[in-house]
Amino acid sequence: MSGINPQFQAIGENFTKQYYAVFDGPREGRVTLKNYYHAELSLLTFEGAQVQGAENIIARINQLTFQKITRALTTVDCQPTFDGGVLINVLGQLKLDEDPVHGFSQTFILKPLNDTFFIQHDAFRLVIHNH
Amino acid sequence: MSGINPQFQAIGENFTKQYYAVFDGPREGRVTLKNYYHAELSLLTFEGAQVQGAENIIARINQLTFQKITRALTTVDCQPTFDGGVLINVLGQLKLDEDPVHGFSQTFILKPLNDTFFIQHDAFRLVIHNH
Repeated sequence: MSGINPQFQAIGENFTKQYYAVFDGPREGRVTLKNYYHAELSLLTFEGAQVQGAENIIARINQLTFQKITRALTTVDCQPTFDGGVLINVLGQLKLDEDPVHGFSQTFILKPLNDTFFIQHDAFRLVIHNH
Repeated sequence: MSGINPQFQAIGENFTKQYYAVFDGPREGRVTLKNYYHAELSLLTFEGAQVQGAENIIARINQLTFQKITRALTTVDCQPTFDGGVLINVLGQLKLDEDPVHGFSQTFILKPLNDTFFIQHDAFRLVIHNH
């Protein structure tokens, strides 16, 4: 299949590890997540609200007020896209400060640009249990 | 933004409704889901196992042995892609026959082709609760 990056699995897993290491690290470091997004061609859907572009995305992330996050990943499914990128679907659990544990779902699409990737699509939801 | 389909929300919601109506309907009708996939350019990751192409995807779906499925969608997040397609993230709950209710997460990427769309990417996972 032309266009598929045979390293998609490693790329997806490494990205996920790096991204959450920064996200879950010291709050003042979270602003560097901006480097993962494109100034215009990045879209975030956070709990249903859509935001476009690195500046707006980081502004949204900076609104999160927790001090401490503990995260456990349950599954990280990576699928190659036909332009050499990677679709990543993460399921896991997280705990913010002293809140109860919540399930979460996050989807990333990494888009190749020059010798690296940026997050073109990012969609995050807490998983709420009704039963 | 050139390339974005302004109807992405309605397209995503209509697709989701139609797809699950067929999937959750009579078992003998499930084979018609093949029409949503491309002969080669469709990828399914089902509980971590990857399958490519409409034939293989339908073969995998046909391995599912439940008689009756009851499904409730919690959230359907639609995001436009920059080629006129739609990224859809579904969270919900389903019950197979007399099994307990399970959460599930499913991601679709609809790719435009001629006057319609096909499912280029499909990733499904049950959401398992460890807590």
